Order: sequence, then C-alpha cells, then structure tokens
Amino acid sequence: MGRARLRDLGIKLGRLSTGPLNAITDVAGIVVGHSTLIRDKPAIVRTGVTMIWPHRDIFTDYCFAGFHSFNGNGEMTGTIWLAEQGLLSSPIGITCTHCVGVVRDAICSYAAKKGVKQAFHLPVVAETHDGWLSDAETFPVTEAMAHEALEKAKGGPVEEGNVGGGTGMICHEFKGGIGTASRIAAEAGDSFTVGVLVQANYGARDLLRVDGVPVGREINHDVVPGHRAPFQGAPATTDGSIIVILATDAPLLPIQCQRLARRATTGLGWAGGIGANGSGDIFLAFSTGNCIARDAQHADVRMLGAERMTLLFRAAAEATEEAIINALTAAQTMTGFQGRTLYELPHDKLKQAMAKYRPVS
Amino acid sequence: MGRARLRDLGIKLGRLSTGPLNAITDVAGIVVGHSTLIRDKPAIVRTGVTMIWPHRDIFTDYCFAGFHSFNGNGEMTGTIWLAEQGLLSSPIGITCTHCVGVVRDAICSYAAKKGVKQAFHLPVVAETHDGWLSDAETFPVTEAMAHEALEKAKGGPVEEGNVGGGTGMICHEFKGGIGTASRIAAEAGDSFTVGVLVQANYGARDLLRVDGVPVGREINHDVVPGHRAPFQGAPATTDGSIIVILATDAPLLPIQCQRLARRATTGLGWAGGIGANGSGDIFLAFSTGNCIARDAQHADVRMLGAERMTLLFRAAAEATEEAIINALTAAQTMTGFQGRTLYELPHDKLKQAMAKYRPVS
Amino acid sequence: MGRARLRDLGIKLGRLSTGPLNAITDVAGIVVGHSTLIRDKPAIVRTGVTMIWPHRDIFTDYCFAGFHSFNGNGEMTGTIWLAEQGLLSSPIGITCTHCVGVVRDAICSYAAKKGVKQAFHLPVVAETHDGWLSDAETFPVTEAMAHEALEKAKGGPVEEGNVGGGTGMICHEFKGGIGTASRIAAEAGDSFTVGVLVQANYGARDLLRVDGVPVGREINHDVVPGHRAPFQGAPATTDGSIIVILATDAPLLPIQCQRLARRATTGLGWAGGIGANGSGDIFLAFSTGNCIARDAQHADVRMLGAERMTLLFRAAAEATEEAIINALTAAQTMTGFQGRTLYELPHDKLKQAMAKYRPVS
Amino acid sequence: MGRARLRDLGIKLGRLSTGPLNAITDVAGIVVGHSTLIRDKPAIVRTGVTMIWPHRDIFTDYCFAGFHSFNGNGEMTGTIWLAEQGLLSSPIGITCTHCVGVVRDAICSYAAKKGVKQAFHLPVVAETHDGWLSDAETFPVTEAMAHEALEKAKGGPVEEGNVGGGTGMICHEFKGGIGTASRIAAEAGDSFTVGVLVQANYGARDLLRVDGVPVGREINHDVVPGHRAPFQGAPATTDGSIIVILATDAPLLPIQCQRLARRATTGLGWAGGIGANGSGDIFLAFSTGNCIARDAQHADVRMLGAERMTLLFRAAAEATEEAIINALTAAQTMTGFQGRTLYELPHDKLKQAMAKYRPVS
Repeated sequence: MGRARLRDLGIKLGRLSTGPLNAITDVAGIVVGHSTLIRDKPAIVRTGVTMIWPHRDIFTDYCFAGFHSFNGNGEMTGTIWLAEQGLLSSPIGITCTHCVGVVRDAICSYAAKKGVKQAFHLPVVAETHDGWLSDAETFPVTEAMAHEALEKAKGGPVEEGNVGGGTGMICHEFKGGIGTASRIAAEAGDSFTVGVLVQANYGARDLLRVDGVPVGREINHDVVPGHRAPFQGAPATTDGSIIVILATDAPLLPIQCQRLARRATTGLGWAGGIGANGSGDIFLAFSTGNCIARDAQHADVRMLGAERMTLLFRAAAEATEEAIINALTAAQTMTGFQGRTLYELPHDKLKQAMAKYRPVS
Repeated sequence: MGRARLRDLGIKLGRLSTGPLNAITDVAGIVVGHSTLIRDKPAIVRTGVTMIWPHRDIFTDYCFAGFHSFNGNGEMTGTIWLAEQGLLSSPIGITCTHCVGVVRDAICSYAAKKGVKQAFHLPVVAETHDGWLSDAETFPVTEAMAHEALEKAKGGPVEEGNVGGGTGMICHEFKGGIGTASRIAAEAGDSFTVGVLVQANYGARDLLRVDGVPVGREINHDVVPGHRAPFQGAPATTDGSIIVILATDAPLLPIQCQRLARRATTGLGWAGGIGANGSGDIFLAFSTGNCIARDAQHADVRMLGAERMTLLFRAAAEATEEAIINALTAAQTMTGFQGRTLYELPHDKLKQAMAKYRPVS
Repeated sequence: MGRARLRDLGIKLGRLSTGPLNAITDVAGIVVGHSTLIRDKPAIVRTGVTMIWPHRDIFTDYCFAGFHSFNGNGEMTGTIWLAEQGLLSSPIGITCTHCVGVVRDAICSYAAKKGVKQAFHLPVVAETHDGWLSDAETFPVTEAMAHEALEKAKGGPVEEGNVGGGTGMICHEFKGGIGTASRIAAEAGDSFTVGVLVQANYGARDLLRVDGVPVGREINHDVVPGHRAPFQGAPATTDGSIIVILATDAPLLPIQCQRLARRATTGLGWAGGIGANGSGDIFLAFSTGNCIARDAQHADVRMLGAERMTLLFRAAAEATEEAIINALTAAQTMTGFQGRTLYELPHDKLKQAMAKYRPVS
Repeated sequence: MGRARLRDLGIKLGRLSTGPLNAITDVAGIVVGHSTLIRDKPAIVRTGVTMIWPHRDIFTDYCFAGFHSFNGNGEMTGTIWLAEQGLLSSPIGITCTHCVGVVRDAICSYAAKKGVKQAFHLPVVAETHDGWLSDAETFPVTEAMAHEALEKAKGGPVEEGNVGGGTGMICHEFKGGIGTASRIAAEAGDSFTVGVLVQANYGARDLLRVDGVPVGREINHDVVPGHRAPFQGAPATTDGSIIVILATDAPLLPIQCQRLARRATTGLGWAGGIGANGSGDIFLAFSTGNCIARDAQHADVRMLGAERMTLLFRAAAEATEEAIINALTAAQTMTGFQGRTLYELPHDKLKQAMAKYRPVS
C-alpha cells in the first residue's frame, strides 16, 4: 500500500460523500490488479501493468463506454471500436508507453487461454511514459505480467502510488503513480456511485492545487526538487500524461459515458492539469448499469434522464481530483534509471500549505 | 462600461502578464461591437448581440479556427464548416438562444449589403439563454441590431457586463454577461497574445472560485439570493451556458486552434464550471497569425512548433478564468421579466472572501 | 407531384424491398410538409422550405438521432446538441442557405405559438444553396413559409422534385430537388423500415450513375447542357450539396443512429457523389423505435443488436441512392434568376442509357 | 508478385491517369515492405506484416496526416495522437488483428535499435482479421517479422495479393489481400499524385462491382463458393475489414488529410463495401508535401487551396476502388486453417462479366 491517502491527512475535497472504500471498487463488480516490476539488473526498470475488470465476464457481457482525449499525446487502444459501438469488451490495461502492444496482445491471449469463443478482440490499453525513472528501451513488460495483473485482480481497497502501471510515474514533479477515489450521487431516490482510477504522470509543479490551495507554489523546487534536467538530449519538459478511468453503476448509454469521460477534464483542471502539449490526457468512462450480451439480437437497456447527469458530472470531477491527489500522497520517493531520484510529496509540508490558506475568521 | 474589472479590485489571477488592455482586442486587428436592448414595453426584454470581427476583411481573407463543445446543450452555427475546413469566414455573433437565426442570416445580408462577392456564407453565431430575465418568446432581436453591432465594432477597451449578447445573462447565480481578458505568451524570442471574450451564463453558486478561493460558498444564498424558483413550470436549474471565444496572433493551423479551444475547459473549471447537463459550453479559437485568401490556389502558412503550444494553453486557461470573473465584477443587478431580480457579485464581499483565504504567514 | 419516379420508368435499384410508398413516410408517424415559393417579382425567386416531423409531439417526446458530415461545406443547426445528447427535439427543416436562420427561429416561434412549455429549443435546420436559379440575396424565405410547411405536413406519398427546399436545386448538372425512397430490413422475425428523404443539389455530370450504369457520361453536356458558366464572378463549380435525412423504426441508440447516418455516404457514392470541396454533404438519421419523454428521470429503451445493423446499413445505402435518382426523375426543367435554365434528366434518354448497358446474354 | 493487375486484364477504372507504377510508390519517397508467414507446423498460419514508410526519416521528420473510421470494428493505433497533432511520426504497419500489439511495440524497438533519440513513440499499426485461414490464436507474428518488413521496404512496384499483412485475407468472399493503385491530379499547372494501398478483407459477394458492373452477382456462389460456413461456433458473417492508406505529394494540412482519408469511403462504396457491422473500415491519409522537423520552433508549410481538393478527392476515390480490385485480381486461391479453402477471383469470369455489361451500340 502507499504511504497515506489524502483523507488520512485530515484533508477533504469536494462536497459529495465518498463510497465506503473511496475507490473505483466501490462500483460493484469492479476488480483491479497490479503487476509491478522493480529491478536493477540487467537494466534499471521501474514499471508495471494495472488491469481493471468492469466484471469478470466482460469478454461476453459488454458494458457501455465512451472516451475523451483532452490532449492526445498518448495512446489508448480500442478507441476506434469504442467510438463506433460504445461497447467495452475487454478488461482495461494501463502500462508504460513502449509496452502498450504486449499488454494489448496479452489480453487477447488471455481470452484465448480461458477458452473465450470469439473471433477476435479489440482490447483497451492505455499508457503513460516512465522513461525518466525506468530504462524504457529495454521493453521490460511481458505477457506474463499482463496475465498476472488480470489474474490477481480483486475488489476491496486498491493499492495506490508506486504500483502496477504507476510504478515509475511522475506527477506535478513529485513522485506520481496510481490513485483512486469515489463519490456517491444520490438524488430522486437513486444512489449511484462514480469511481475513478488514475495513472498520474503529468504536470508542472507550480500549477498543483489541492482544494484550490496553490500547494505547488508553496512546495516549490527550492523546497522539493523536481526533474528539470535535460532528458535524452532534449530539453526537459514537465508534460507527462494522465489516464483517467471512470466507472459508474448509473445506467448510462454510450453517448452519456462519453459525456462523463469529458468531466475528468474538470477534476484534472482543479488539481492543476492543463493538458500540456506533450501530455496524453485520455479518459474512459464505463457504466455497469447495463449489460449487453455479445450476440444479443436486441437488448433492453435503461438510460438515466439527461438532467440527472449534472450530479454525476460533479461526482466525476470531484473523484478525479481526489484520485490524483491520492496518487501523490501515496507514492514514495524513488531512485531509478541513471541514478535519478524523484521525490514524494511531503505530507507535513502539504498539511502546512493547506493550513496557511485556511480561512481567517 | 461595467462596474469594475477584477484587477481594479486588487485581485490578480494567474502567472502570465496581461496585454495592455487585458482584453481580446489586445490581439491586433480584432474589433468588438455590442447592440443592447433593454425595454419594458411591449414586453420586458433584456437582450442583445455581440459581434467579434477577427478583422474587417474576414469575408474574403479567412482565419484558421477550431471549436470544442465541452457540453453541447447549446448552439453555435458554422461548426460543420469549421470542422471541415478549419477556416473562419465571417464575424462571430453571440446572442440569445431564440435569436441565433436572425443574427446568422443578418451576417449574410450584411455581406450582401456591403457588396461582398460570394455565393453564400456560413457564419458563426452562438448563444446563451436569457429567458429568466427577458421575455425570450417575443423574439426581440432584429437584423438591424445585428448590423448595428457589426457596424459599431471597434478596438480598444471592451464593454463588459450587461451589454450586447450578455445583457440578460446569469453566472454562478449572480448577474452575468460579457467579460474579457488577455495573456502574453512570451518564449524563445516570440511574444504572442491570447485574448478571450466570454458570454457567461452558467453555473451553480457553490462552485464559484476565484484564484482557488471558494467565493461561492462564502457569498452563498443567505448572503446574496440566486434564482432557484421554478421556471416555466419546470424545476429551476442553474445550468446555463457559456460561450468562449479565444483569439491569438500566434500562427496556428486549424488543428492547433481546436487544441487551443479545448483549453477553455480548464479556465472554466478553475472558475467553477463543470459543464452541467443543460449548459451549452462551446468554445471557438481562431488565429490571426495566418491569413488565407478565399480563392487562393495555394497558401504559404506558418505553424507554431508543437512544444510551443503549452504556453499558449496556459495563457488560454488563465485568460478564460479571468474573463469570466470580469463578467461578474462588471455586471450590475438587473430586474426583468416577471419582476425577477438577479443580483450582482458584491465587490466588498468578494474582497472579504479573498482576504479570508489569504496566506497566513 | 414530380414528373415520375424511377420505378415508374421500369428501373429498379438494389436488392431489398421498398416500403408501400417507397418514401420516408413508410416509417410510421412521419409527416412531411413543403412550402414552395416561385415568383418573378420583385425578384426572381425559386426557393422553399421542407419540414419533416418524426411525429407531431417531438417537442416533448424526443427521438434518438445522430448525424454525419461527409463534407461540411454547409450548415445543419442543432448538431452540437445532437452530438452531446443524441436527442432530436424538433422537426427538421431543409431550406436554402441564406434562410437557415429564419427557418430555425421559426421552429422556436412555432413551438411558442403552440404553447409548448420549454425554456428554449435547439432545432435542426439544414440547407443547400439555390443561388444559381434564385436571387438568394433577397432573403425570400419567411417565418410564415416555415410555419406553413410545419402545418401542412402529412403522411402518405411525398411530393418530389421542384418543391419545398428543393425548388431551386441542381443535381449532377440536371435539375435537382427533393427525392425520397424506402427499404424494408426483414430479419430474424423483425421487419424494420428505413426511409430516406434528400434535398439533392450536388454533383458533376460525368460521375452520375444509376445502378452502376454511367448515365452521366451517356447523357453528357452535348446531349443536355449543364451550368458551367461563371457565377458571381467566380469560376463555375459543380460542387453543390446534399442533405440526407434517414428515418427508421428500428430501435437504435444515438450511437447507432450516427452509424446509420454515415451510410448515406455509400448511397451517395453509388449515385456519383464524391463530396466535392464546396459541397455540404450532411446526413442525419433518427429512430422512432424509442421515445424519450423530455423530463424523464429514467427511460427504458430498446437497442438493436450490433450484428443486426448490417442489414440496416444496406437499406440505408439503397434508399439513399434511389431517393437521389427519384429527385432527378421528378424534377422539371426550370428557368430562373438571370434567365438561366437548368434542364431536367430526360426520361427517354435515361431509359436508353440503361438499356445500352443491359446484360448481353 | 500476384497473378495479375486489373489493367493487365484490359479493364480500366475511372477517368484520371495513373502514375507510372499505378502504386502508392508513385508518391516520391514512399517505400513498402512485406513479411509473409505461410507455414503448416506447428500450426497452420497464413499471415504477415506490411510496412509503409512515408520516407526513411519519419521518426524525426514528420508528415501531416489524418484518419477516418467509416466503420470502427477494428484497430488502428496512434489515432489519438493523429487527431491531436495531425502528425505522422512512424512508419505505418498493417497486420492481423491479434498481432497489432507486437508490431506496434516492434516499431518502437526498431527506432531504439537504430539509435533514434526520442523519449517515446506512438506508432500507427492497423489490422484486419485472418482467423478463417490462419490459426490466429497462436499469435504467430513476431518482432523480427515487423523488423524484416521495415528493413526490406523499397520503392518501385509493390507486391500484391497474398503477401505481408494481406496473406490470409478474404474480400467479397474471394481471396483478398494487398492491393495498390495511383492517380495523377493535374490542374492549374500542378501535378500531384495520390497513391493508395489497401489490405482488403471485407465484403459480401453480391455487392462486388467493377466499374459499376455487378461482378459479384455474376460470379455468385454457384460459380465460385464463398466461406459462409459457421465459424468459431458463431454464424458466418462476411463482414471483414479494410484498411486504406492514402498518400499524396500535394501539400495538405492535417485537416485536409482528414478530408482526403474520408474519400476512401467513396472508392470502397464503388467496389461494393458498405461498412458492415463487423468491419473495421479505417482510412489514413498522409501528405509528403510538407515535412515538419520534430523539434521545430516554427514550420513554414504550404497548403493547397480548398477548391483544389475536389480533384484530389476524385483521385482518392478512383485509386481506392482500383487498389481493391487489384487485390482481388492478384490474390491466389489459398487453403489454410482447418482445411478451409478460399478461392481467387477467376480472371476469365471477370472478363466475361465485364463484357456482358458492355455498352450495346
């Protein structure tokens, strides 16, 4: 597990209640697995794979889903199929940039191994780049790691920080990684959950905010160094990327999932993400509220009324913001490729910064 | 002119410098005109038209442009042409929802009147709805008003608040309207300007933030009432809409203008906009950095390097945020249709709220 | 009524059966109205408005819909809302380019007049340009004409050729206009109808094909002149535009309507449309198979299985092709603005061309 | 090399001239390589990889590009980056569905091996499914095969039919595969080339047309059997997929490349493709007319005038149609997985069918 979660530090974000776990796994049926690879020989590697199953029968019982690319300097496979059909038909993988392919094919081979009868698969695998801390050109991720993350996936609390696909990540020039959060959208007699999981690897220090407080300006590079040294011969950038996976049990149609995905932009903005040029800020939302059997001639599905979306949008924005900050509070200082070190967000200084901007009565 | 601008109150947003006017007219060549209609007979009307000319020869010398719909419960004409060609070929109108048509055709008739030789026009006209303060079903806007706004357009400071298309608008449950701001993106020997003009008519009170300070929670409905009474028989919503027009002299291609437009989402998020279901949050960005003659066989154009976009994105986010707050500080309390009153954001209480969250050293 | 329909001439297209009327009105509930304006004083005008009601309660009981722009040198209002919500909430208007605005606002005013309780409307109005035969710069279409087309709308056979929005149109350099057709998609115990209505105003002569036969090369400009004289000082083009409205009673979701709309491209291609640069080739598909009450908290809707779409796609392509050719066989030679004449497709020469390429046994 | 090309059989399509090779390699600088795998042990495999280099320096000197998904039941990686930046930054791979990942990562590893200094890559790899003739669940394609196709790539005539990614493909229920063609768009003193390469794996027999002649109805299943037996326990479909790569030396911007890509729909329609539900009909167009250095601060680029696009669109449609038919005339009867046989399009019967519909004078 990571160091701590934001709420463990006594800091709350947003107005809506969290689910019991404050995690994507608050949406019933979702399981998450990580495979983490940290080794120094033959090459220094800090990487991994994270897998999210909407439910274990996803190869035959599809979910509605939609995506949004806020800034597309990144990869998410399967989006052409999502744009066409609005159907999620595989678990979702998140890994490092150069390993998208092996993880994508590994989902196909896993289905074949499990005897899924299906001519072919179009899995969703997304990435952020961990080449600053990990020797990415060794292509360290394997099919076995992807299968391990699929196998080990479980409900309950989700590991955050330096795990799975988040292992080598950097966020607002602190150590980044995996984070999760959730919100309850209760209205008109319904209570729906919106859960979010992020792989956070983006952002300039000075833009980081927590509940509006300019934490990044307070804990600046004089306080905690970043990573602005030139890299691979190119000038350093702090662009990075972030993948946001949003899940809900509200019964949404594909076009409504697209709308929900777009709201990750708001939560990202609140935390300080502006979609920098080099960033792959790609968001996917799926709903477990309808289940579409693969070969159905018809499906009877439920659609949430349009006006009911507003509360879900707020839930999505809040949960995205908190999932990002949870990635930061969980992740731990890491030394990696070429002896580089990326520092964690110090809890004490975070608390000090928040206190400094507290209301003065 | 409106009551005041944010910086007049001693409050600054963001890190980049503003242009000399802190207005969209800081981008050379841009002129803006308003036509405002406030009358009580035969019907109570609070409405108008705002026109933005990228330059006066736009019917024959096109600009590259792109748009983004963050939440599409609204209208912007001309977007199908923009998506296809990336060319802005008309002035941009902003008005009330039921008057989009008359303003759109009026741009065509204005061109005809001026003797522009062109088989047809595909103008850009966007809207937000002013039906709470104005009797929208009287369809009060006329061709003459649209022509007036086109004719009167000028450079220099831009009127804000209750003017033009912004006359009857509501923002975060305060009186809203037109706002503008600008930023300088200086890098690598270049200095580009990003200017923004908004017609702000969206948002829930409790989400409003200024530089991260939860102003909307501080100046809540107990302090200044909003407009939550049921409306037209339907439950009240605070959804509204916002149109954001972004202009730059940086030499962008159409696809880069689309990227810039998308960044209004960030600035809107910082101010507290989440793209509520009923909101038409539609953004258009154009560049005056290239000029395409209508019938050119070829054009030689300049493109800003991709990595250079990040600074423009930050400028767009900051200018959008400040333009929204400028609309709020400028707009004045208004009583309108059915005796309803919408209250302005009180400057003193805004300053108090900002002071309350000031850093405690 | 027009001169004749393709099947009246003994020519059949495609393999699927037509509906009883071979018209968009084969989809139950759909009514179509035209308002036609042909006058020589004070200006020579050949124009009109066509209105399609999915059903008469569309302002409160929405249909799912989606659109596709194959080449976006044209206008269709309401598409930003369609992209967001996938809901069609108004009748669909088709008219001339410079009159899109008046027709759009007229739909709003019609709803107001009828006492529809709704804060605002985002109607769908599309256009093609009739400026070669009609003095478009006189802006001849009125609100009253739009209301007339709405009022007069009825089921049963649909007038084709020089009527409504199609009055002044040109297609493959013959006289064009309104055309319609339908197909039955019967499979797995279901029988769905796909109906199409086009306003056809596009295309180069030499590309016209009927059932694959190069009719346009056979009936070339030596046989029947076209309209290649320079126009408005600009070189003549044959670009034009086409609006295709597709309707079905199959229960489709919004994302499936988008897919269906895209298939008009195939039918257009078969007839000889390549989406020339200046063409506004914009397609909208809606489904009457689900009905969404405007203020519903939830809706239970039906979705056709994905594999079942293929037959609908074929139906859409065939019906689009035939609707275009029906516009050509119906339209009559017209003389208009500046004494210009556009000639009809001669039936005898069409039959000769088809016979010339008949199979040789 | 394949059996024959369409023009070798005395059959011509379209009105524009071909380039000297009638191949994508008519666009200067383009090189194409295939790696083909046909083996019966340990599993029966009929598969491969095809690679297209816009030019050999594509990792550092980018091309503008755009894509269109006519029916997205397929995969093309790299499209999120293309949608964002409009820049093609890798060679383009085409392979089988389950091997997209390995080929995608192999492009990254090839760049690393060659010492390209770049933090990460977002390569374009597309697929069609060869599981009817090849044991796809053995995941037969390797990194070495992808590297081989990259290395072996060359200009000049392009192998067609059962080669590279096209090895195991099926088209209109005949043996399909790789095909190519080109057209010259000469106008206003310029002469541009449009080259197309397809991997054709789609289509129902009865829809196949050649120059409008219903060849598929003439050479029906009684004449040459298809492959309608149930497959993998599911009912047989004839959906398949087609990848179309369009290249031009005309100086296009990204948004213009998107437009060009969309025109593959027309050529596909002419050949008989309707974008069946299960089909991944995905098109990519790139222009070698501008070259963007990866780290440029600015680029001076040329843009073809909008009106000049029409001729390119026609070239794209014609070349796509002919490339598909070339795939059919080149491909040879193949027996593969589970003893299944797919038959080639017989040249004599094609010629007979064309003659049967010849003009009767």
